[in-house]
Amino acid sequence: MTSNGVTRQAKPDPCSFIIFGATGDLTHRLVIPALYNLAAARLLPDDFCIVGIARNEMSDDAIRESLMAGLRKHATRPVDDGVAQHLLACVSCIQADPSEPESFDRMAKQLATLEEKRKTTGNRLFYLATPPAAFAPIGEQLGRVGLLREDNGYWRRLVIEKPFGTDLASAKALNADLLKVANEHQLYRIDHYLGKETVQNILVLRFANGMFEPIWNRNHIDHIQITVDEKLDVGRRGSFYDATGALRDMVPNHLFQLLSLVAMEPPARFDAHTVRSEKAAVLAAIQTQSQAEALRNSARGQYTSGSINGPIAGYRKTKDVEPDSNTETYVALKLAIDNWRWAGVPFYLRTGKALATKRTEVAIKFKQAPFAMFQDTPVDRLSQNYLVIGIEPAEGITLQFNTKVPGPSIAIDGVEMKFLYKDYFKAEPATGYETLLYDCMIGDNILFQRADSVEAGWQAVQPFLDAWKAAGNDGLEFYAAGSDGPAGSTALLEDDGRNWRKPS
Amino acid sequence: MTSNGVTRQAKPDPCSFIIFGATGDLTHRLVIPALYNLAAARLLPDDFCIVGIARNEMSDDAIRESLMAGLRKHATRPVDDGVAQHLLACVSCIQADPSEPESFDRMAKQLATLEEKRKTTGNRLFYLATPPAAFAPIGEQLGRVGLLREDNGYWRRLVIEKPFGTDLASAKALNADLLKVANEHQLYRIDHYLGKETVQNILVLRFANGMFEPIWNRNHIDHIQITVDEKLDVGRRGSFYDATGALRDMVPNHLFQLLSLVAMEPPARFDAHTVRSEKAAVLAAIQTQSQAEALRNSARGQYTSGSINGPIAGYRKTKDVEPDSNTETYVALKLAIDNWRWAGVPFYLRTGKALATKRTEVAIKFKQAPFAMFQDTPVDRLSQNYLVIGIEPAEGITLQFNTKVPGPSIAIDGVEMKFLYKDYFKAEPATGYETLLYDCMIGDNILFQRADSVEAGWQAVQPFLDAWKAAGNDGLEFYAAGSDGPAGSTALLEDDGRNWRKPS
Repeated sequence: MTSNGVTRQAKPDPCSFIIFGATGDLTHRLVIPALYNLAAARLLPDDFCIVGIARNEMSDDAIRESLMAGLRKHATRPVDDGVAQHLLACVSCIQADPSEPESFDRMAKQLATLEEKRKTTGNRLFYLATPPAAFAPIGEQLGRVGLLREDNGYWRRLVIEKPFGTDLASAKALNADLLKVANEHQLYRIDHYLGKETVQNILVLRFANGMFEPIWNRNHIDHIQITVDEKLDVGRRGSFYDATGALRDMVPNHLFQLLSLVAMEPPARFDAHTVRSEKAAVLAAIQTQSQAEALRNSARGQYTSGSINGPIAGYRKTKDVEPDSNTETYVALKLAIDNWRWAGVPFYLRTGKALATKRTEVAIKFKQAPFAMFQDTPVDRLSQNYLVIGIEPAEGITLQFNTKVPGPSIAIDGVEMKFLYKDYFKAEPATGYETLLYDCMIGDNILFQRADSVEAGWQAVQPFLDAWKAAGNDGLEFYAAGSDGPAGSTALLEDDGRNWRKPS
Repeated sequence: MTSNGVTRQAKPDPCSFIIFGATGDLTHRLVIPALYNLAAARLLPDDFCIVGIARNEMSDDAIRESLMAGLRKHATRPVDDGVAQHLLACVSCIQADPSEPESFDRMAKQLATLEEKRKTTGNRLFYLATPPAAFAPIGEQLGRVGLLREDNGYWRRLVIEKPFGTDLASAKALNADLLKVANEHQLYRIDHYLGKETVQNILVLRFANGMFEPIWNRNHIDHIQITVDEKLDVGRRGSFYDATGALRDMVPNHLFQLLSLVAMEPPARFDAHTVRSEKAAVLAAIQTQSQAEALRNSARGQYTSGSINGPIAGYRKTKDVEPDSNTETYVALKLAIDNWRWAGVPFYLRTGKALATKRTEVAIKFKQAPFAMFQDTPVDRLSQNYLVIGIEPAEGITLQFNTKVPGPSIAIDGVEMKFLYKDYFKAEPATGYETLLYDCMIGDNILFQRADSVEAGWQAVQPFLDAWKAAGNDGLEFYAAGSDGPAGSTALLEDDGRNWRKPS
């Protein structure tokens, strides 16, 4: 998705693509397969190099071999050897470690030599595929040795993976640290949800059609549901997850991205500044709750043993998880947005692990027709009026509405109209990172999070973090792995006379 | 469709079902097969008789045999002999001819005897399956002999087939004649389009859902298209058709039924009086055009030889058609509705015979998004925003809207969401008359035309009839059988910068 209206796809400027954490899982699993797909689509620069930064010395051949093995394992389509060889021939390895500042001075020199040889002119993209603790130290070192300075017309960009902070204070601190060495326009905070077609399509659906926007407000919408249900359990990520929990892991990033695209005001222009300002504005308009309100407007759960395609151990039995952990693996929230468009329209969000079905969707529930003209039809029938933006398992749009059941009398039932991406577009299978990496290289940061959005997101969830910390295990529910989640999540809506949408 | 909110289906009151034109095509092809389907669904009264009125003496056995042969030929589902025998055992034949008034006196006595035997108590439904010239004379005679008088709590109803008049004056005269012998509530003017599920569903779609009505007006709708395209040529109906033409045959009845359901204001109650008043109101709001305006806002065509699954002779070569006939077999009109909801929204109507495809639909074209945020997308792409109510060939609802084409840049294309009746409801194949006949028997006239609607319809088309009569063959276009119709129909929309929707 490009904000400058380019529908033809141009090759990016010559540049160096420098990866910190080059020997890690993310690089092998997503970054290189995505670069391979861009190469196959001829969307990489003609003059290009990939520089893997490793903490320990490693030869060019060794890293190429490792990345090639990763590509063969994780490629989303059959690997063309010519394309793969050409791509990997661009790879070099340089050693650097932020805990040894002098290694960055050395790296800067090696990089300059390499860039001259590769004719990448001086444009640089630093991709931090590292644990979050390394973001600030790497940024600091890059800044210190001058690698982030945009001089002589060259661009220098810093791409940061999530999680971006662990609460409001740490997110602010990380922003402050990075903004000491780079300007906001140089920072590309990745949320891979924005690489998904259907997520990007929310804006097209809303703003390229004349018929949705007029009813997209408090007058016509009853409430909005955002669901990100996973079947996967915590698996081998116990150490990370136990310190994080479902709320931090998913809500201020993925779920809030969905929320902001669905709820934002129409941007006056489709450019990064305008779109990101509107997204930040709607996140900033999320009502900050007191801790008491946060407890009332949330449910949190932790899975116990159960079964999903086979037996699943309870969360507390997971490797690297505290045996008396209070970390939530499921969260449901009720939020309000304090602006003219959304006043009085609840936003219900839920996400969890080890659930019965994998499903990601935004469901917009429209208000019922204003009076019951069809008097004999039960009201719950008449209320099935949803527009559903489906992201998983199937990307598409569904409209659930009421129709007449054939027959001599008026009986009304809910039916669906459905549009599925796969029925229309034969897109090559992709990692979801292609668009994001391409956009980093062409300098389009519309799909990346700006500092104000990140902080507004944490601001909104902070009361829940605080309230739960104070409550400890008081209020933590348990749900069996393979179930639909804790009872409190159902009650959160039922108390308002509403229900979570059932999968269709 | 019942206006009293009955969703359970009750058996009608005991009654006699008296058919004029019992030996004719309509009775054999539609009325008896529809009664058979009602019998199979146990929706006929327990005490019931069918009386066939024939101009010439005929035995009960003879008419039963003839109707049974018709049923076997035209039944919409396998005939159960038990049900069919039981139904036909209810049939008797009585001779009567409106040109011999004394035959009606005799018939009244025979009917009374029969009704006593059949225990139908005195409720009577007179079904006029005759040529239209007989409507008034039969009504007059029924009135004279007292058969239409509703006394002692019994009901007496008169069901009239189309065409109801041939212009405004004749329709008014026919209404006046019938209202001399019966009250409006006794008259059931059939338009078999209203027996179609999708047509009835228009009201449910609009008024049982919260999300359509808010955008159902001049602020959000660009224009509305109503299409009734037929592949059939005039065939053996030359004599009737040459005196009638496409406008009279289709527009004031079928097309205006669709128009009134789509354009009417929400009725305060779902009862016959309220719904029919709103339908009449919107038909009365159709702008009456001058003859000059009518010529400008219409196209008419006549088919010449061509090919549709084999060669088709030109209209003027059809049996019983004048060799220099100016009768139109195709008509396209542009109408305006003068009320707050529809001011400035053109309604384009078209219908014709011997066309390339069979298609009946109402297409609501929404206005484009108010400004081009996605600047590189051609405007004609952005304008494909239709809600289509499909009646033929497939009953269902389609929403055509814009979505993002997968890929790193913003490209927009039109896609469809679709709901098809057949995917949801396994309705038994039916004639489309079942609902209408059932409603006649239970006294629900919501699906029947009231005098004011009929006259408002003719009022709206009269300027076109007058202007074409004055113009003779001047302005009559020719189109090849199997084509999409005359060029003037395309031009009617193109002059406004619009296009007929292409089949999807």
